Amino acid sequence: MNKVSEMRDIIKGNAVVGQSGGPTAVINQSLVGVIESAAEHECIENLLGARNGVRGIVEGRFVSLNGLGSDLLERVADTPASALGSTRDKPDDDYCGHILDVFAKNNVRYFFYIGGNDSADTARIISDLAGKANYQLRVFHIPKTIDNDLRVTDHCPGYGSAGRFVASAVMGDDRDNCSLPGIKIDIIMGRHAGWLTAASMLARQDSDDGPHLIYVPESPVSENKFVEDVAEVYGRLGRCLVAVSEGIEDEAGTSWGEHITQTTERDSHGNIQLSGSGALGDYLAQLVKDKVGAKLGGKRLRVRADTFGYLQRSFAGYASPVDAKEARKVGQKAVQFAMKGYAGGSVAIRRKAGPKYGVTYFRAKLHDVARETKALPREFISPSGNNIAESFRDYAAPLVGRLPRIGKIG
Amino acid sequence: MNKVSEMRDIIKGNAVVGQSGGPTAVINQSLVGVIESAAEHECIENLLGARNGVRGIVEGRFVSLNGLGSDLLERVADTPASALGSTRDKPDDDYCGHILDVFAKNNVRYFFYIGGNDSADTARIISDLAGKANYQLRVFHIPKTIDNDLRVTDHCPGYGSAGRFVASAVMGDDRDNCSLPGIKIDIIMGRHAGWLTAASMLARQDSDDGPHLIYVPESPVSENKFVEDVAEVYGRLGRCLVAVSEGIEDEAGTSWGEHITQTTERDSHGNIQLSGSGALGDYLAQLVKDKVGAKLGGKRLRVRADTFGYLQRSFAGYASPVDAKEARKVGQKAVQFAMKGYAGGSVAIRRKAGPKYGVTYFRAKLHDVARETKALPREFISPSGNNIAESFRDYAAPLVGRLPRIGKIG
Repeated sequence: MNKVSEMRDIIKGNAVVGQSGGPTAVINQSLVGVIESAAEHECIENLLGARNGVRGIVEGRFVSLNGLGSDLLERVADTPASALGSTRDKPDDDYCGHILDVFAKNNVRYFFYIGGNDSADTARIISDLAGKANYQLRVFHIPKTIDNDLRVTDHCPGYGSAGRFVASAVMGDDRDNCSLPGIKIDIIMGRHAGWLTAASMLARQDSDDGPHLIYVPESPVSENKFVEDVAEVYGRLGRCLVAVSEGIEDEAGTSWGEHITQTTERDSHGNIQLSGSGALGDYLAQLVKDKVGAKLGGKRLRVRADTFGYLQRSFAGYASPVDAKEARKVGQKAVQFAMKGYAGGSVAIRRKAGPKYGVTYFRAKLHDVARETKALPREFISPSGNNIAESFRDYAAPLVGRLPRIGKIG
Repeated sequence: MNKVSEMRDIIKGNAVVGQSGGPTAVINQSLVGVIESAAEHECIENLLGARNGVRGIVEGRFVSLNGLGSDLLERVADTPASALGSTRDKPDDDYCGHILDVFAKNNVRYFFYIGGNDSADTARIISDLAGKANYQLRVFHIPKTIDNDLRVTDHCPGYGSAGRFVASAVMGDDRDNCSLPGIKIDIIMGRHAGWLTAASMLARQDSDDGPHLIYVPESPVSENKFVEDVAEVYGRLGRCLVAVSEGIEDEAGTSWGEHITQTTERDSHGNIQLSGSGALGDYLAQLVKDKVGAKLGGKRLRVRADTFGYLQRSFAGYASPVDAKEARKVGQKAVQFAMKGYAGGSVAIRRKAGPKYGVTYFRAKLHDVARETKALPREFISPSGNNIAESFRDYAAPLVGRLPRIGKIG
């Protein structure tokens, strides 16, 4: 990278900020970070919020973000889900060309897009098109995803809060399962990456605490192995708490969601959704009831499944303080990087070395963050493949913040 | 009631405390309240914790609760779900006779049972049997239920924390639904009583906020009316958030859970569970997708359902402070009432008159709390039957504590 050739003059003009993809508990922290920092720089004449991300840009739906009071901004920052609205649109070159036209017509010179790898890709395409058209535009991607699957950055804003929710939910659920013993299956978001499901391991404080088994998409498992694992734990402890990624796959690389469409009547109703549906949990509960029950000589088992669903990403009032702070910071940093004259990039987080948690922020290339994602590394998965290694605690604990303390009797 | 005839001398002996039924986030506060107060009274020689409620008593599984350190006790108090273990056993006269034998053999003179209406009934039977056998025993029921359906008391410990969870979840979910508009259905616990589902109304801060529709078992609804309601809101707002009690019934008094067994393949798998299963939510989502979609000219709708499941009762770290305090207090009060020489009763809460929230505690008769439950009064259900009246806010808001604040842009 040649810094000098990449640097350009600061230009006066308008700025647009948008939010994309699945919401998080702290995505508005990043929005407010952009608003605060943009207000400090005179070369940003007007800051416009695009309603529903890129969709609002092409449809001309903007809201002025100038001169908002700090009390309102703090309330917005604390509110889960995208305050500007979101979109699932994944723009191609044509769509992005349209966006660039809107920008040129409105003298938009700065674009800040808060989202995941798809949003980084949108930013990349727009940045490339602007370069080809010789239109001076600074394009910054601001990372956001509960999936924690963006490349380059150590972790993603939004993940800490979702992980905090998951760990606290599983911690309480494990106590529930201990007080009324049985087999409990918790389905956790993560279609391709197991980061969020892995955070359930933070619920364990003592060796017999659940989750006793953790399945992530990076470690495929057959139905037989799953049943054997559960039967082993249940036989040993008289109960079993299982955390399962919604994207769990079998050894042939087929998602278990596919099993459901093949083996139940539900396929006639249309697509199986992994989130916003209890289908996978109910399927696994039935599998365990039938097959683990049979293994244990026809024992009638108490089996329940909960699908944590959208609560993981949008529960109000339980964000991780560290996550909230970092989410604000990545928004501010995007504006600051743009003001330094960089043409574009994705804000990334680097963890400082040493025992005390701390981070620095840097600018990654859009190309390096766009499209592809980062799986949970093998080192964080226990050799058995059905659990998360203790080393993951060091990685994740600082991100979720202080968790509730558990007290037991006897 | 003749107080004088009911009073007896203080007797020296052992005490047993147990926990029963579905856990709550604060049921251990009540346990710790009993432990603390029992330690202050010399006539309680040993306090024994029954493992898994009445089941542990008949099986002789006890743990000593004497001399536990205050740090451990505070940690136990903050931990969701029953620290002593729970049970679903509903003892009859024979079972209770067995309990009484165990008590007599061990000179147990005080029994404190933390639970719902079934536990109050167990306490009632044991108390009656002791009276007939002329065995001096003080039996106190300590109220606990997220369902808030106990008679006599203004509200039940456990409800405030569950309501706090539900209100915060729905509040965040409504922002999520606003950022990615569609129809969202949230299934909330409450097989017979709508109190917990009603707490979802606390999520509303502005007039267009969800939940836009709230269905409770006390207000039956047909599938057609449900579909019409959702279509009306969606047509008006372009989105719709619906809160539904798991115990929702049609106008013939049949639970919707029954519809599912009649109309899907799921009945071959065994009983439909309302909690620990996503079946009802998935059923309603499909109903809405098909029928509301058809009403809107075959429009393909984004419909999702989440079943809040066990998280409502056992999520760690998000209890209502008021609820936690009151749960501790009812445990303490039970011991204090016993020490005053009353033969038995159920601790109940009376709300003080006036604008500032405050409560006093009193002793209700076991017979008046046992068995039957208290439905959500008609006055709290809107005349349309598909929502909760604003007057419910005054009732419920003090119980759940301060909720997150919401900020919106534009």
